[in-house]
Amino acid sequence: MSLNPDLAARLGALLQDRLSLATPDLVQHAHSESFHNAPPPDAVAWPVSAEEVSAILAACAEAGVPVVPWGTGTSLEGHALATRGGVTLDLSRMDRILEVRPGDMQVTVQPGVTREALNTELRTTGLFFPVDPGANASLGGMASTRASGTTAVRYGTMRDNVLALEVVLADGRIIRTGTRAAKSSAGYDLTGLFVGAEGTLGIITELTLRLHGQPEEVAAAVCAFDTLDHAVECVTATIQSGIPMARIEFVDAASARAFNLHSGAGLPETPHLMVEFHGSPVAVREDAEAFGALAGEFGGQGFDWASNTEDRARLWRMRHGAYHASFALRPGARGIVTDVCVPMSELPAAVAAAVADIEAAGLVGPIVGHVGDGNFHTLLLVDPENAAEIAAAKQVATRMAERAIAVGGTISGEHGIGVGKRGLMAAQHGEGWQVMGAIKAALDPRDILNPGKLVPDRN
Amino acid sequence: MSLNPDLAARLGALLQDRLSLATPDLVQHAHSESFHNAPPPDAVAWPVSAEEVSAILAACAEAGVPVVPWGTGTSLEGHALATRGGVTLDLSRMDRILEVRPGDMQVTVQPGVTREALNTELRTTGLFFPVDPGANASLGGMASTRASGTTAVRYGTMRDNVLALEVVLADGRIIRTGTRAAKSSAGYDLTGLFVGAEGTLGIITELTLRLHGQPEEVAAAVCAFDTLDHAVECVTATIQSGIPMARIEFVDAASARAFNLHSGAGLPETPHLMVEFHGSPVAVREDAEAFGALAGEFGGQGFDWASNTEDRARLWRMRHGAYHASFALRPGARGIVTDVCVPMSELPAAVAAAVADIEAAGLVGPIVGHVGDGNFHTLLLVDPENAAEIAAAKQVATRMAERAIAVGGTISGEHGIGVGKRGLMAAQHGEGWQVMGAIKAALDPRDILNPGKLVPDRN
Ligand SMILES: Cc1cc2nc3c(=O)[nH]c(=O)nc-3n(C[C@H](O)[C@H](O)[C@H](O)COP(=O)(O)OP(=O)(O)OC[C@H]3O[C@@H](n4cnc5c(N)ncnc54)[C@H](O)[C@@H]3O)c2cc1C
Ligand SMILES: Cc1cc2nc3c(=O)[nH]c(=O)nc-3n(C[C@H](O)[C@H](O)[C@H](O)COP(=O)(O)OP(=O)(O)OC[C@H]3O[C@@H](n4cnc5c(N)ncnc54)[C@H](O)[C@@H]3O)c2cc1C
Repeated sequence: MSLNPDLAARLGALLQDRLSLATPDLVQHAHSESFHNAPPPDAVAWPVSAEEVSAILAACAEAGVPVVPWGTGTSLEGHALATRGGVTLDLSRMDRILEVRPGDMQVTVQPGVTREALNTELRTTGLFFPVDPGANASLGGMASTRASGTTAVRYGTMRDNVLALEVVLADGRIIRTGTRAAKSSAGYDLTGLFVGAEGTLGIITELTLRLHGQPEEVAAAVCAFDTLDHAVECVTATIQSGIPMARIEFVDAASARAFNLHSGAGLPETPHLMVEFHGSPVAVREDAEAFGALAGEFGGQGFDWASNTEDRARLWRMRHGAYHASFALRPGARGIVTDVCVPMSELPAAVAAAVADIEAAGLVGPIVGHVGDGNFHTLLLVDPENAAEIAAAKQVATRMAERAIAVGGTISGEHGIGVGKRGLMAAQHGEGWQVMGAIKAALDPRDILNPGKLVPDRN
Repeated sequence: MSLNPDLAARLGALLQDRLSLATPDLVQHAHSESFHNAPPPDAVAWPVSAEEVSAILAACAEAGVPVVPWGTGTSLEGHALATRGGVTLDLSRMDRILEVRPGDMQVTVQPGVTREALNTELRTTGLFFPVDPGANASLGGMASTRASGTTAVRYGTMRDNVLALEVVLADGRIIRTGTRAAKSSAGYDLTGLFVGAEGTLGIITELTLRLHGQPEEVAAAVCAFDTLDHAVECVTATIQSGIPMARIEFVDAASARAFNLHSGAGLPETPHLMVEFHGSPVAVREDAEAFGALAGEFGGQGFDWASNTEDRARLWRMRHGAYHASFALRPGARGIVTDVCVPMSELPAAVAAAVADIEAAGLVGPIVGHVGDGNFHTLLLVDPENAAEIAAAKQVATRMAERAIAVGGTISGEHGIGVGKRGLMAAQHGEGWQVMGAIKAALDPRDILNPGKLVPDRN
């Protein structure tokens, strides 16, 4: 497709060289981190203010042309692909940190600020922003997928850490949601509605985030287990015991092998837990000892403590690199990633069933997880030319999701729906999915905001 | 008004003696805890299942008759009054605790279960539900006002502690929102939308709640300050220092006097902080010492430690009784209660401005607050026969709300909007208030669910 010339002219007059119809720019925004593909958008726009976003939306609404927001494009379910054409709204130039308020432990940022840029800026304030998907994602994108990561077990997800937003609606209206108070009972939680909406309800142009004090003391360790069951049961016992873990991550034997192949990690090729403790020196010691005792009961051994900042950075870089490292297990493969999350008591059975199913299907599928939340990922590595294998992998992924639903869990703990998980939404939510569609229709009657994602198709 | 006879017959056939048109029942549901009054509803219904609620809503939607949910009727802004007539849906007979799942630290309850009944049931499990508005409110009502209370500074509000809901929509459809997983990125946060919606979007017929481990050790204390400024500045410093307070409550000199008059508390008639610490014995000692040192810097003195369970219960009963005790300061008065919440750094100035304004208006208005969240209440005690005084008090309340908005805070930290704060919603949310109205219209096109509350009037 190509952009209708009137609209192209109108947007060009507004944005000058911050509108592109050039193939390399379009193709760059047709790329997805995972299995999903789509034709390129018809245009890419790089707005620098809420007012520009508003003018773009008003013009596109009038022309009935889709607008697809784009943060850093690291989402894993094809969220930011322009599957129905239209204009990709790349927010990377709205990258200013607007105000740090240490006394309130808050920061206000534009949506294109990345989490690493934010934490670099905060380093000297004694504060940090904890939510950390592995990728260096944008805060607007992270809010829009309701992202979490290794520290959610302690500090919560984007749902818990976004206080207020500025949002441009489909018709160009600019609204503010939430407040800078710690809590509010003043009406519907619009902030919570836009968080996790994947760009289908409005464009986030400003975020006020909760910050946390940098912990006085940090200790991290990796320890090995004989069997996957023992490692996962140790996690369940740890969470149930109430030890305030800052991180508790599971990696299976295949992932350990991938780390070894990819970066010479030198890990025993067995399941591991990677843990971190935050607090006062006394509290960290208490917590680490309590965890050590529990891990011992499940056969955890070979505790390797990362005592300094560099060792810890290396440990978490390795964990965050799991997605990319896993391809070392099958060079040339593409990955189908799953993201179920289940109640804590269901975790051991859910992981065991996933492993059995992957093996029965003859697939390669390493497993890692933010297991303290009951969330784990398998990366099903498939030959992109082998349709039967892809179909088998998709079936395994679907069964995993269906089992999660059956025990009261979710098809997505943190990655979101995009196009990849949309087929499971009816099973997850029943009639509730139609309610999501009704809200979408109320706020975006012409269906121009990231159409074809998350909600049911319009009748 | 009286109920249209067809509808009365239809509901009567459904509910038998659980439908009442009798004056005492109607009058009982026209009572509000605070300043607001309304004529009685036309009927009261006591459903016992989601299916009955669904049938009632379908019948009322067809007849275009309002349905107003009622938990225990303790809300303070006239939320549950049938200001436009219709059927009051009293949920007190849906009071079963359906399932406690200790391994997941979750419980599923019907909406009429009260927080005290729930905690009594949980006593032997090692778990508790922390949200505690002073009143023994219903969990459905608490979810609907997004309630919090003294422990929100540590454990969060209803927003943070409701995981999943069953909701009956205006057209009778029964949906489930959320999951039992610790987090989810599977679409719009419908749970968060119904929490705080004050019965305007649907009737909550089941809630799954997050539980917390009963702390190993608890310590509580009350301490006195010379001046209100010093007490409030101590709170700000405490929160900014990161001491994990389980409770930190402010009561002013007038409230101390009210406790003395009402229950012979024997407190010095100066400002006080009431604090509580939860954790391991070591952590509680560390935290209490750190707070003690800080309080000392602000002149805090006469620490009175409540060392056993009864002493603590007495302390918090006194605090929770502040609303009723305050009337001892002016017998026969009625109360207009305010509920602003501001960013932590703005708290000292906000309290000081409130005090100055109350004094300038010549009003009696004791102050208490969940100050660890930046939330404080004044109870403006007015002579119900004195129109000028009532007008003056309302102006003071409005100015307090406007000042909160001006510094990024909220007109309601926890009580909600009801009819009492609706006039401030445009100032709080601007165009965002219209968005709330659009969502309401999408989910309740005939405007039968608690009409005239929270959202703008339908055009
Ligand atoms: C190696 C790797 C590891 C990962 N690990 C994790 C993890 O641990 N946890 C986790 O949660 N995720 C993880 N992810 C997924 C990804 O990083 C997150 O989904 C992230 O939140 C996406 O942010 P982004 O800026 O790249 O958004 P994009 O991919 O650009 O966009 C995501 C969605 O948000 C919308 N959007 C973007 N910006 C805005 C805006 N300003 N307003 C409205 N809508 C907008 C887009 O339209 C799209 O629907 C991982 C990804 C990779 C590649
Ligand atoms: C002395 C006193 C102290 C208080 N202290 C606090 C405090 O510290 N913190 C605080 O937050 N509040 C406090 N409150 C206010 C009150 O207790 C809360 O607002 C509480 O959440 C109301 O619960 P309820 O069951 O009484 O609800 P109700 O008053 O019956 O109803 C509240 C609202 O929710 C709706 N509703 C009720 N049940 C349902 C349902 N099942 N589905 C859908 N909608 C429903 C009603 O229509 C109404 O709009 C206090 C009140 C008093 C009297």
